[in-house]
Amino acid sequence: MPLGQRVGDKSDSRYCGVETDFSDDMPHVLTHNLSGGFDFVLAPLVDPSYRPSLSTKSANGSSVLPVAASDLILSPAQWSSHVVGKISYWIDLDSDDEKLRMDSEITLKQEIAWASHLSVQACLLPPPKKGSCGNYARCVSQILQGLSNMQLWLRLPLEKSESVNNESVDAGDDSLNEVNDSWELWNSFRLLCDHHSQLSIAFDVLSTLPSTNSLLRWFGEPVRAAMFHTDAFLTNARGYPCLSKRHQKLITAFFELSFQIIISGNLLHHIPQERLDVFPPSDNDCDGEGAPAGHQLKPYLEYVAYLYQKMDPLSEQERFEINYRDFLQAPLQPLMDNLEAQTYETFEKDTVKYSQYQRAICEALLDRVFDEQASTSTSVLMVVGAGRGPLVRASLQAAEEAGRKIKVYAVEKNPNAVVTLNSLIKLEGWEDIVTVVSCDMRCWDAPEKADILVSELLGSFGDNELSPECLDGAQRYLNPDGISIPSSYTSYLQPITTSKLYNDVKSHKDLAHMETAYVVKLHRVARLAPAQPVFTFHHPDVSLIRGNRRHKKLLFKIPPDTGSTMVHGIVMSES
Amino acid sequence: MPLGQRVGDKSDSRYCGVETDFSDDMPHVLTHNLSGGFDFVLAPLVDPSYRPSLSTKSANGSSVLPVAASDLILSPAQWSSHVVGKISYWIDLDSDDEKLRMDSEITLKQEIAWASHLSVQACLLPPPKKGSCGNYARCVSQILQGLSNMQLWLRLPLEKSESVNNESVDAGDDSLNEVNDSWELWNSFRLLCDHHSQLSIAFDVLSTLPSTNSLLRWFGEPVRAAMFHTDAFLTNARGYPCLSKRHQKLITAFFELSFQIIISGNLLHHIPQERLDVFPPSDNDCDGEGAPAGHQLKPYLEYVAYLYQKMDPLSEQERFEINYRDFLQAPLQPLMDNLEAQTYETFEKDTVKYSQYQRAICEALLDRVFDEQASTSTSVLMVVGAGRGPLVRASLQAAEEAGRKIKVYAVEKNPNAVVTLNSLIKLEGWEDIVTVVSCDMRCWDAPEKADILVSELLGSFGDNELSPECLDGAQRYLNPDGISIPSSYTSYLQPITTSKLYNDVKSHKDLAHMETAYVVKLHRVARLAPAQPVFTFHHPDVSLIRGNRRHKKLLFKIPPDTGSTMVHGIVMSES
Repeated sequence: MPLGQRVGDKSDSRYCGVETDFSDDMPHVLTHNLSGGFDFVLAPLVDPSYRPSLSTKSANGSSVLPVAASDLILSPAQWSSHVVGKISYWIDLDSDDEKLRMDSEITLKQEIAWASHLSVQACLLPPPKKGSCGNYARCVSQILQGLSNMQLWLRLPLEKSESVNNESVDAGDDSLNEVNDSWELWNSFRLLCDHHSQLSIAFDVLSTLPSTNSLLRWFGEPVRAAMFHTDAFLTNARGYPCLSKRHQKLITAFFELSFQIIISGNLLHHIPQERLDVFPPSDNDCDGEGAPAGHQLKPYLEYVAYLYQKMDPLSEQERFEINYRDFLQAPLQPLMDNLEAQTYETFEKDTVKYSQYQRAICEALLDRVFDEQASTSTSVLMVVGAGRGPLVRASLQAAEEAGRKIKVYAVEKNPNAVVTLNSLIKLEGWEDIVTVVSCDMRCWDAPEKADILVSELLGSFGDNELSPECLDGAQRYLNPDGISIPSSYTSYLQPITTSKLYNDVKSHKDLAHMETAYVVKLHRVARLAPAQPVFTFHHPDVSLIRGNRRHKKLLFKIPPDTGSTMVHGIVMSES
Repeated sequence: MPLGQRVGDKSDSRYCGVETDFSDDMPHVLTHNLSGGFDFVLAPLVDPSYRPSLSTKSANGSSVLPVAASDLILSPAQWSSHVVGKISYWIDLDSDDEKLRMDSEITLKQEIAWASHLSVQACLLPPPKKGSCGNYARCVSQILQGLSNMQLWLRLPLEKSESVNNESVDAGDDSLNEVNDSWELWNSFRLLCDHHSQLSIAFDVLSTLPSTNSLLRWFGEPVRAAMFHTDAFLTNARGYPCLSKRHQKLITAFFELSFQIIISGNLLHHIPQERLDVFPPSDNDCDGEGAPAGHQLKPYLEYVAYLYQKMDPLSEQERFEINYRDFLQAPLQPLMDNLEAQTYETFEKDTVKYSQYQRAICEALLDRVFDEQASTSTSVLMVVGAGRGPLVRASLQAAEEAGRKIKVYAVEKNPNAVVTLNSLIKLEGWEDIVTVVSCDMRCWDAPEKADILVSELLGSFGDNELSPECLDGAQRYLNPDGISIPSSYTSYLQPITTSKLYNDVKSHKDLAHMETAYVVKLHRVARLAPAQPVFTFHHPDVSLIRGNRRHKKLLFKIPPDTGSTMVHGIVMSES
């Protein structure tokens, strides 16, 4: 039963799991937990007391893995939808004890093979034991090479020790200098697995949380689940479990990022039994029937559901954008390629932009022509990159609003857009005011100079709308005292962690994709430092030195309490 | 309005189009034809009288393409769902007239650019003029490199001249020897376009059809549409249009293969006007409202709809398989990889197979043990590759049916399947009869010899179930007079045309995929010659020479009236 119905949310974060102990009655485990309101169980698939080196072989020389249940006990759909396998916690592939190491490797491989056989969606790997994780990661990397679709979730505590005392470093005391940061462990592990896309993270959320900056860096990492142990919950005045304000904020962020919540541990909050039936913070009534005995972890589940349901529904804008989140879009190349009608259609829907343009053009007209000249003086406007005409319309509306006379040249190089532009002008009866020029603005031999140059070429590092370059080229037909709209803009850069996008680009296995500047609606990313301005351009540009080679060196400072991070890329924005 | 509701059919063949003339009132064209019952129009997008070399430039040096309608006249959804663009019929890129050639190339590029701007799904290219198509194909190939999603349909008459007179060849008279086969033209064209996946075929179906074999070879080619001109229709006794039996059979095959039908031409069947409202063969009533004047081609559309609705609904088996049609599946490698539970689940559903095995085992038991020995003699059965136990169950049921005593060894190398096998035996209480051997059959050191060896290892050239090889290895523990079930099988080969699969494999851009033997539910293929047997194996194999290197040379004879064809691959089957 999902945590609730949040408008527009189709992500996995609606589903809440529960960690269970080993049981050879899997159908009962599943029925009990699903009827208790959970969506899936995180359950050991093999008896935790099993050790390959101790197992006795049968008379004919073969031994059978002591699994929790034969595959036939549950339907294939139940295995794949409602069970996440939990690999035996005792395994330690980096132990000094050779027998334990061997037993661990055999068991790990057997359990994952069994889980694959069952087609469960994911297996939870136990956290690496303190210290090195090299052999463990090597073995997991090997397993990942042969895995079909199953995900492997590496269990890690969400912790980071506070800043190391510098004095102790000077003292050379290594033991005091040991950084207890799960991120370091994760980073070693995933690097040894070459960023494999089926390897992700499941957190143990503890009662104490690390600093906010150190939490934020995880938002670009492939976290799939967060396990909330019952002892991470506080107790409210009426005896019910609740979370600290910081934990609440974190869990809400997890919901936003589609991490799945798993409740773990035993009932630690002793709520009078009669109250369990009418648990207050939840709005969702039970179905009436079912859940006769009640699940002992239900108060925790209902509190999590309450936090989920308290979230704002996704806005219309968010619902529109949801399918574009963290999705690589090849940058438009409107100079090289001609845009399609549908692309113009989308851009023209931005009414805010065009009303701002209208306001700016109106102000410019009023600036250049005084009221007493309004009926005699005609301003020359050039719309460069007129497309299907939205800026032409804005110009005419601005002239009307300002009470000024204008003459418009609409310059457009896409012959298909010119077709629309012409029919628009005919339809609106603008033939006496607007001249369409079907030409690249860089080549046009203008018959007169413009008072106002209007354009919307703003691009980015990666595409080729080529502002400022094209606009610099058009500047030659602007009067020396003329006005360009826009008159200036600035680009910004910011380093981010984004393992999803990194893996998407990496899957192409070539440098060209790594070097492509993609357009992305960023969502599951960690912004590691504040964005910094890079280039600012002014139009018209009267400076003598003109050229299109630009470079700049920027230094980004990551907040000191963040800890180490991985920069997967640089995000560029403009304003 | 689709031609009808055929259960399970979600293909494009439900939609019927109509070819229209150039009109600058596109909204009217669309409304008229859609309300007439058609689903899309095949319409010229640019005035056919336009010639770039004759067009006059406007005062500012620019000229505007004389298009049928500005993009804004229809919504983006209307353009993309209901309009297929028809490129000007007059273009001839291989003409001797240089001006015509230049005008043709410019126009072709402009019209396709305009169609891309509108985001129509496809454009129909006029048929190559007689003779060479080299420059036309070169230009289309160039256009295809820069095309986003649009399909290009090359219009071709569905014709092939009857067999060439050999004497005229000897006489060296080239003109008599000219083969009039659209396939040859198509093949030259698509080879010059390097089998581009966005290039496909739209047929003009004429009143005369070529031979059946020559029609069949097209079924593996990328045909998207078939245009039925009104003069291809006959007239029935009551004055209504109908098709010849051969045409009916062809159109039904087109529906099966998801080709879209387009009606073309003028009303040639003069049906009394009052009859038009109650056209007999159709079952689908009009909506009551709409279509006041009636569409002049409606009798043809209704006849086509009648043929569509007359087809049998897709069977449950077909509906299950429909998503696997012409879809490359990597071959299972059950020797190298362990199968998953879901795969066993699927295989075990084949009840026909296991009841046939049961019958065969029953016969073998009756053969080996006479009635008088039934209570004393115990036959030893070995199931090699027992999986989760379906053949073990079949063996026990066969023994029960035959009234014979048996002892079963179930040999299985997948330890995960052994888990299930063990729990099955415990559940059914078969411990005294069945011994599970968790071992590769090639290595097993059997404690006794078998009377009957049962297996279902049948593989194919490409996978590695490795029958006969594994079975040859298991043969050493079969009594010299023992029986193997199966006792023999044969593999077959057949050459096919399948442009869809060829392009799917080609998209990987490497030799490894080209050399992989895929498992495919074949649908849009042309089987070019009868399948021929390749290897037959017998078990047990008492021949002295044993080895796993096999080769054979086969000669396939394509029926002489087929014409030329393209062999994209070889399909292998087994029995």
